[in-house]
Amino acid sequence: MKQNDFCGNHTEEKLPDTPSRNKGYFFSVVSLDTAIGKLCSIAHETGTESVPLEEADGRVLAEPIYASSDIPGFDRSWKDGYAVIAADTPRASEAAPVLLTCAGTVEMGSDENDFVAPGQCRYIPTGGVLPKGADAVVMIEYTERLSDTILVRRPAVLGENIIRRDEDFHAGDSIFEAGWVLRPQDIGVLAAIGKTFVAVMSRPRIGIISTGRELVGVDATPRPGQVRDVNASLIAAMLIRKGAIPIQYGIVSDDLKHLINLLSTACRECDAVLVSGGSSKDEKDITATAIEACGTVHIHGISLAPGKPTIIGSVADTPVVGLPGHPASACLVLLLVVSPLLQVMEKRPAGASVTIKARMAENVPAEKGKETYIRVRVKNGKVTPLFGKSGLLNTLKESDGILKVPAGVEGLEAGELVEVIQW
Amino acid sequence: MKQNDFCGNHTEEKLPDTPSRNKGYFFSVVSLDTAIGKLCSIAHETGTESVPLEEADGRVLAEPIYASSDIPGFDRSWKDGYAVIAADTPRASEAAPVLLTCAGTVEMGSDENDFVAPGQCRYIPTGGVLPKGADAVVMIEYTERLSDTILVRRPAVLGENIIRRDEDFHAGDSIFEAGWVLRPQDIGVLAAIGKTFVAVMSRPRIGIISTGRELVGVDATPRPGQVRDVNASLIAAMLIRKGAIPIQYGIVSDDLKHLINLLSTACRECDAVLVSGGSSKDEKDITATAIEACGTVHIHGISLAPGKPTIIGSVADTPVVGLPGHPASACLVLLLVVSPLLQVMEKRPAGASVTIKARMAENVPAEKGKETYIRVRVKNGKVTPLFGKSGLLNTLKESDGILKVPAGVEGLEAGELVEVIQW
Repeated sequence: MKQNDFCGNHTEEKLPDTPSRNKGYFFSVVSLDTAIGKLCSIAHETGTESVPLEEADGRVLAEPIYASSDIPGFDRSWKDGYAVIAADTPRASEAAPVLLTCAGTVEMGSDENDFVAPGQCRYIPTGGVLPKGADAVVMIEYTERLSDTILVRRPAVLGENIIRRDEDFHAGDSIFEAGWVLRPQDIGVLAAIGKTFVAVMSRPRIGIISTGRELVGVDATPRPGQVRDVNASLIAAMLIRKGAIPIQYGIVSDDLKHLINLLSTACRECDAVLVSGGSSKDEKDITATAIEACGTVHIHGISLAPGKPTIIGSVADTPVVGLPGHPASACLVLLLVVSPLLQVMEKRPAGASVTIKARMAENVPAEKGKETYIRVRVKNGKVTPLFGKSGLLNTLKESDGILKVPAGVEGLEAGELVEVIQW
Repeated sequence: MKQNDFCGNHTEEKLPDTPSRNKGYFFSVVSLDTAIGKLCSIAHETGTESVPLEEADGRVLAEPIYASSDIPGFDRSWKDGYAVIAADTPRASEAAPVLLTCAGTVEMGSDENDFVAPGQCRYIPTGGVLPKGADAVVMIEYTERLSDTILVRRPAVLGENIIRRDEDFHAGDSIFEAGWVLRPQDIGVLAAIGKTFVAVMSRPRIGIISTGRELVGVDATPRPGQVRDVNASLIAAMLIRKGAIPIQYGIVSDDLKHLINLLSTACRECDAVLVSGGSSKDEKDITATAIEACGTVHIHGISLAPGKPTIIGSVADTPVVGLPGHPASACLVLLLVVSPLLQVMEKRPAGASVTIKARMAENVPAEKGKETYIRVRVKNGKVTPLFGKSGLLNTLKESDGILKVPAGVEGLEAGELVEVIQW
């Protein structure tokens, strides 16, 4: 698995001049690829940390891993049976078994006193050390024991049912490259070579700031005109699924100074900061103003529906993304724009988004020349579009993922095979 | 999503009489479906717990969730623009805009002093409370402001760009059934209705005991004949991925009394216990003996390759699974047998295993009349079988999942479309 092509395929489209809030810059939207490319270019890697093996699953290796010794460290049996000399058994058959003398039993976990001479065999359990002299194991199913004599009913082939001392890994072998994403079986491999701690990329710490004078906490009872802050919880859950650590900075009403202070603090403490809401055509476009006050707005507006009023900026070298306030739009931007950022920061290989191939249950018309993403439900191999305002939670809840309607097409037809990106 | 058919499709094949260790019961293997059915039938549900919203993602709801109030609690604007009376605008056009008097601005988070009379409009930001009298919002793109006069260049349709007060959820609506598995967007929904804590099924607590005289801890340096305990770490990582909590009980050498004591303790403290290794045709088949000493062995042997020497038993009402010692076999049994157990215990809907459809890169011969699972690598839509001893970690590490070769087929052919179960 080669994993160094994080953002390389995003075209280096020329960015518009630094947008100014008074020049209707809203219409200088950039393409999604340009936005991702810019965001990734200002990202910093998170650094590394050492974690106990039992917490390493799913993490990205920060170092290559080599076999410290041969695994297993000795020739061992792969089956329960008798350790034999293959040359003693070539004519063994059901009708005419070969008779061998049982010289004893191989003790598990020890290699003492074990030797097989011609005409002899030793009982050996799975995983036992192959006795000196023996070069094959006959499975117990093909033997019969009569006191100290063992009847062997099948010829043993040289090396049969043996795992050689370095058959799994040879001392010094490269087992994992840096950047490998650990899975449970890899945790087993690391256990085998004695890694109790492993160096991995640190999880990106992502600050979350919610803006909006109408917002109250989840624990509050909204007064007329108020709503609870949905996005902070939703964004945090998505970030955790992507391997990041969300850090909540709370709600900013519409106090620019407060937002600037909070943004500066968050940018000092985190690897990236997401500001939810406050980014639109509104005269009170507080997020862009705050970013400009303490840093730079690089992009304001992505050619994406929904998700157009997304902001990409930086404050003191820390990437800042202004997410649209509508939950469905925020989800989409998290999936399409923030995920690549997290991948770059953690050096996590790209292309990890889970997709489902299924057929359209109905026609979907395309919007004129605009890349559009629609929420869809996938059931029994059928993709049903869920049209609904991006401000609604219910279609988001009903959806299993999103479907891209490319800018160039005239729509999607019922029966057409499509690829749904799972939430 | 209906989720009550956990194990219902597993046929109630007659179980063999209680196996006895001295009767060669190894050959009374049962089908995989029978094994799963039996194991699920002795499982207990885990009970419920209340967790903070920020830890609820991925958990199974233990209670149905209803909307406590209308969401949103008021008619609000979906866009930035002007709140108008639709009947004032039917003839509005680019060439002949309708002129309205701006009566002020809707303040976010408040519903005070807002009223629109015929001939008037009010600026309204996204999410603002629709002023009394108004029945539509014209997007700001279609307006122009000249001092206190607003030029409206498009007719507004009744209800346009408005989210009605109960359009998302109506007070009392059933939002989630018990058994629903929470996703990030669902966390957003719960935030919207003010759920700071949510009742979910408790995660199954699964004890892990490793057996084998040859085993040493991951932190030890193996002496000749010894190997590090791979399975305990591997199993724990897989359990965590399945939503369970692994509890390590350490390594039992080959001391039956020690195993019986540890098994009894683990079965008191856990929802289920996995014993790795010690289950084979060997005369020292310690796991089955220990289970029989303090409980019951229900099944010893499943018609499954690899994974045949699997044990299903119970001790004091707690399910016990004896896993094969070879890591690849243990993984397979975890995926096929233990996963359904965890699902039943947590009332988690079945059918969650992630599969990839791809084409065989080469032929795979079938074993005679036996359901076989092979490890495979999936790359560029091609499935490559990784043949290798189940005792080896390297083919396990190289694999992305497993592929079933059904008992009835003559093998799989290159180019054939198959479904790989991802690890």
